Amino acid sequence: MPECPLPFAEFGFIVMAHGGGGRLMHDLLSRVIFPGFRNGHLEHGHDGAVFDAPQGRIAFTTDSYVVRPLFFPGGDIGKLAVCGTVNDLAMCGARPLALSAGFILEEGFAVESLRSVLASMQESAQQAGVSIVTGDTKVVDRGKGDGIFINTAGVGEVRSRALIGPAAVAPGDAILLSGDLGRHGIAVLSAREGIAFETALESDCALLLDPVMALLDAGVEVHCLRDLTRGGLASALVEIAQAGGHRLEIEEDSIGVCAEVRGASEMLGLDPLYLANEGRFVAFVPEAQAPRACQVLRSFAVSAGASMIGRVKAGKPLVTMRTGYGTSRLVEMFSGEQLPRIC
Amino acid sequence: MPECPLPFAEFGFIVMAHGGGGRLMHDLLSRVIFPGFRNGHLEHGHDGAVFDAPQGRIAFTTDSYVVRPLFFPGGDIGKLAVCGTVNDLAMCGARPLALSAGFILEEGFAVESLRSVLASMQESAQQAGVSIVTGDTKVVDRGKGDGIFINTAGVGEVRSRALIGPAAVAPGDAILLSGDLGRHGIAVLSAREGIAFETALESDCALLLDPVMALLDAGVEVHCLRDLTRGGLASALVEIAQAGGHRLEIEEDSIGVCAEVRGASEMLGLDPLYLANEGRFVAFVPEAQAPRACQVLRSFAVSAGASMIGRVKAGKPLVTMRTGYGTSRLVEMFSGEQLPRIC
Repeated sequence: MPECPLPFAEFGFIVMAHGGGGRLMHDLLSRVIFPGFRNGHLEHGHDGAVFDAPQGRIAFTTDSYVVRPLFFPGGDIGKLAVCGTVNDLAMCGARPLALSAGFILEEGFAVESLRSVLASMQESAQQAGVSIVTGDTKVVDRGKGDGIFINTAGVGEVRSRALIGPAAVAPGDAILLSGDLGRHGIAVLSAREGIAFETALESDCALLLDPVMALLDAGVEVHCLRDLTRGGLASALVEIAQAGGHRLEIEEDSIGVCAEVRGASEMLGLDPLYLANEGRFVAFVPEAQAPRACQVLRSFAVSAGASMIGRVKAGKPLVTMRTGYGTSRLVEMFSGEQLPRIC
Repeated sequence: MPECPLPFAEFGFIVMAHGGGGRLMHDLLSRVIFPGFRNGHLEHGHDGAVFDAPQGRIAFTTDSYVVRPLFFPGGDIGKLAVCGTVNDLAMCGARPLALSAGFILEEGFAVESLRSVLASMQESAQQAGVSIVTGDTKVVDRGKGDGIFINTAGVGEVRSRALIGPAAVAPGDAILLSGDLGRHGIAVLSAREGIAFETALESDCALLLDPVMALLDAGVEVHCLRDLTRGGLASALVEIAQAGGHRLEIEEDSIGVCAEVRGASEMLGLDPLYLANEGRFVAFVPEAQAPRACQVLRSFAVSAGASMIGRVKAGKPLVTMRTGYGTSRLVEMFSGEQLPRIC
């Protein structure tokens, strides 16, 4: 592509014309976005990427990211966008084959911020062993967006023979949780509201691919996987109970919450069961395989805190929690939201 | 899912909590979005969709849609979002296997408008023989979005044996154009600016899958396909010339522009070569096969106006156009934009 007569450097900020399909858009792509994601596919300059299909089954997923602020302790919207979609593939028992990235930029967004986000996306994609092979960039007028929104979609190769999902959950399954709760929610809230905690709490935003693949490789019979994002552990379990049609019983004392999250939650009146996480998941496996599964999970830093937190029982599709006082409480989905724009 | 204690009907408009991961979000999904896209995948309630991989190669593409206004003569953002992504797959020589949909809704967006958009998406997806199998819904605060933004990604099964793309373009190829130019750009502009034309010009927004598959089924040796969206015919040809490394020569008199588009373009000082289209494409085929290819294309309403508009020559990667006066003009990519937020 010939040099643009208006050097890109003259635009420190996104202008409407960067989304217009002309030279400025190509300049943004060729100078900022493609170099950020260096791989052969994007440079073909075609409408989509073409690659060999795997044998067997493929998984396909998407998420849009609107987190505010864009940069928070432990991550940013770019890391979140790649980890989130890779994690959704992992929850289908799939290894990622290819990712897409769709950007909606607001007029006036700083190109340096865009570069930072792209670098985070590329770093996480490399860690997951996947490339961002196709994408799209749109620009909206100032006041019609919020800096940057990112959509990622992912295609993965399913590695498990059996179906993984709520329909495979059965009475007698153990419910495993990969680590403590609420770090993402509190980290984003603290960045947004300027609440200072005594220690620098970071989001748990991370890839969950390795522990999931290790579970499958170890021959653990995984019935269901679910990463805990918006709505937290409570909403994930209620969804699985309702979709699978079984009662889930969890033990409050077995659910880890670090001191910083517990302190902030108490101060703000939040329940950690509903706090967002971006690097935690639940796994449903036959109870006899739970010790082995926990052992596998604990060999990875991201799931070093794995433990069994409950069981699947026959009965109405509800979630109950036995508290530290020996009482039992019904865990419901909350009606609205705890923290808006958390991912 | 149990009934929501706050009946959904009480919310005629999107509220922040519809994106919060709780009951209101599930209510929006189960009452509005899933019924709009009825298919087995979404109701599994899992993080992604799983389906059998095709044999051979798969194509993967994405686009975000931010068109303004959301509803315009001949289509809306939903039709655009499905047709655009199916068309991008078609341009890779692929038939769609599955689509995803990511929504970014602005607080206050009317649920009835959302239903209309979903109905358009479903209608176009059914026409293309594909389902929307996975998705995501986020809500942003009022003034941080613009009603609705949609991202669609698509996975397709590549039906052509040979690579289709700019790298396959060769001197001696004919350049075919599937129809007249500029209807989408002028239709959206007229809806946006309230410009009334004598006749009701509609966007050309349409699926291009059938004519492309017919070209491949007819054994036409298709070297490159490109749908003409932002930036119009001119930008598409300049991109292909640069990516393929050849000179493209087109004939102005062979390029169709209807009277309404010509009139509006003259009135507004716009060049139809740069106007956006959402139902037109160029195909590069060996010149000897051009008559047969045009015959195939003309058998479909969407490409009834297909004709040969030029040739690929050896030489510098430029696009030149022979005008009706016998002179030759260099066709360049415009630097900025003609019309913002056209798709």
